[in-house]
Amino acid sequence: MRFTYYRTIRLSDTDAAGVIYFAQLLSICHEAYEASLETVSIDLRTFFDNSSTAIPIVHGSLDFLRPIFCGDRLAIHLFSRQLQENEFEIDYSIYSRSCRAECLAKAKTRHVCIDPIARRRTSLPESMVRWLALEPPLPENR
Amino acid sequence: MRFTYYRTIRLSDTDAAGVIYFAQLLSICHEAYEASLETVSIDLRTFFDNSSTAIPIVHGSLDFLRPIFCGDRLAIHLFSRQLQENEFEIDYSIYSRSCRAECLAKAKTRHVCIDPIARRRTSLPESMVRWLALEPPLPENR
Amino acid sequence: MRFTYYRTIRLSDTDAAGVIYFAQLLSICHEAYEASLETVSIDLRTFFDNSSTAIPIVHGSLDFLRPIFCGDRLAIHLFSRQLQENEFEIDYSIYSRSCRAECLAKAKTRHVCIDPIARRRTSLPESMVRWLALEPPLPENR
Amino acid sequence: MRFTYYRTIRLSDTDAAGVIYFAQLLSICHEAYEASLETVSIDLRTFFDNSSTAIPIVHGSLDFLRPIFCGDRLAIHLFSRQLQENEFEIDYSIYSRSCRAECLAKAKTRHVCIDPIARRRTSLPESMVRWLALEPPLPENR
Repeated sequence: MRFTYYRTIRLSDTDAAGVIYFAQLLSICHEAYEASLETVSIDLRTFFDNSSTAIPIVHGSLDFLRPIFCGDRLAIHLFSRQLQENEFEIDYSIYSRSCRAECLAKAKTRHVCIDPIARRRTSLPESMVRWLALEPPLPENR
Repeated sequence: MRFTYYRTIRLSDTDAAGVIYFAQLLSICHEAYEASLETVSIDLRTFFDNSSTAIPIVHGSLDFLRPIFCGDRLAIHLFSRQLQENEFEIDYSIYSRSCRAECLAKAKTRHVCIDPIARRRTSLPESMVRWLALEPPLPENR
Repeated sequence: MRFTYYRTIRLSDTDAAGVIYFAQLLSICHEAYEASLETVSIDLRTFFDNSSTAIPIVHGSLDFLRPIFCGDRLAIHLFSRQLQENEFEIDYSIYSRSCRAECLAKAKTRHVCIDPIARRRTSLPESMVRWLALEPPLPENR
Repeated sequence: MRFTYYRTIRLSDTDAAGVIYFAQLLSICHEAYEASLETVSIDLRTFFDNSSTAIPIVHGSLDFLRPIFCGDRLAIHLFSRQLQENEFEIDYSIYSRSCRAECLAKAKTRHVCIDPIARRRTSLPESMVRWLALEPPLPENR
């Protein structure tokens, strides 16, 4: 899946150092993931309630290249790929919408599909395999 | 000022009770306030750094009428009015975009303009008086 | 129930205006509520999963009297009282631990007990009635 | 520096999947960092306002080994070490206080000291070099 999510940095995203609170950027990347799930009509409420399958994040990382401030308008480019039948990874590249040449940060999350009762790995549901295979019909250029 | 802000509830907005974390709704209302400031070209980074004037929130309240879930698409209607030359209030009405007849919650914030050094009340800056007086050119109907 | 909760303001509690993010104070008050529930051996994980009864917050309010900064060590005094057989209210007074005469903020939450399936009001569980009636054996003075 | 920080998981730390919201664990690790700075009398308010030197996080990562629930009482073991004269790294190991043999998660942050005006690397301040060199007088066993 390739997807671009647009997001303005809000006061609640920042801290007293005057920039984005570092861990908040991972949260904004997760918003991009959720928005991309919505494009293939996955219902977020049932998706995250973990009743049949759960897809927890087992690893996350982020790298800051430049400071991000309140009011900054970001474009988060998401690229996901399947690693195993029960595992996938998402790469996020965070750019400024006003200066597209400038990468502000990068992040990564790895997700594993489990049976929430047995807490054992299980195959990704059909809907997620479809989401992983999806390429957007046209390049993003809005 | 009258303004409508559209926002989808994200996983980070929710808690283990399965619904929105109550205090998070006030934060989403503040996002609506920030988005409305951007419509009159107020720069959020300098607006909130409090170097010349600061406009802290002195009071906030919220009332929940119905539960709000992950993935819910909300419309937050904001209405602000000046109370004194150094004070204004914002009312927020939170509706579901899929069922417009249903008010989900209401909230209110009161803001006071102060000199951040002397910590004494001072008149609202020109830009905020203009923001307060603004009515949208057309009814919101997207 | 009367209870005092001690809490240091962390960087994640603050915003780019250099003080606590206003809605975060309601969240800190909720921490005080949770800590008070633990003193009567209520298990928070099952308490909040809402399987048998749910006790959502229907109203919250907060008033700021003085600015609160990163590193500030707070004492949150909580006082709860039953309003009806299915409803209670909590008052919070937030003080600085270094200057006890100075009230920094006040907050309030109102909680209603419901059957989470029928979404109708139901009597508060025994454990909560006991929690509400509890007075600490000695005044707090650590 | 070696330090142990004790922290109970609160409702606001969790999400609708019923466990801790993943990015929140990095935030809790940062709390441990802040608490360790307080043990050497670093004033957090001036430390984070970035007026003379700023020490932003340039990299963060986290690995989840087991689910973490509301009410869980954690011990976060922090171990920091200097990498260069302007750079240090912190390792965090997150354990359950009730079952000490069980590591729940691991995390890492890397911090770089910069001149906030020139945005160029500069040597770590004396206080941070001292903090990095510090070993606790006795093993943690409370």
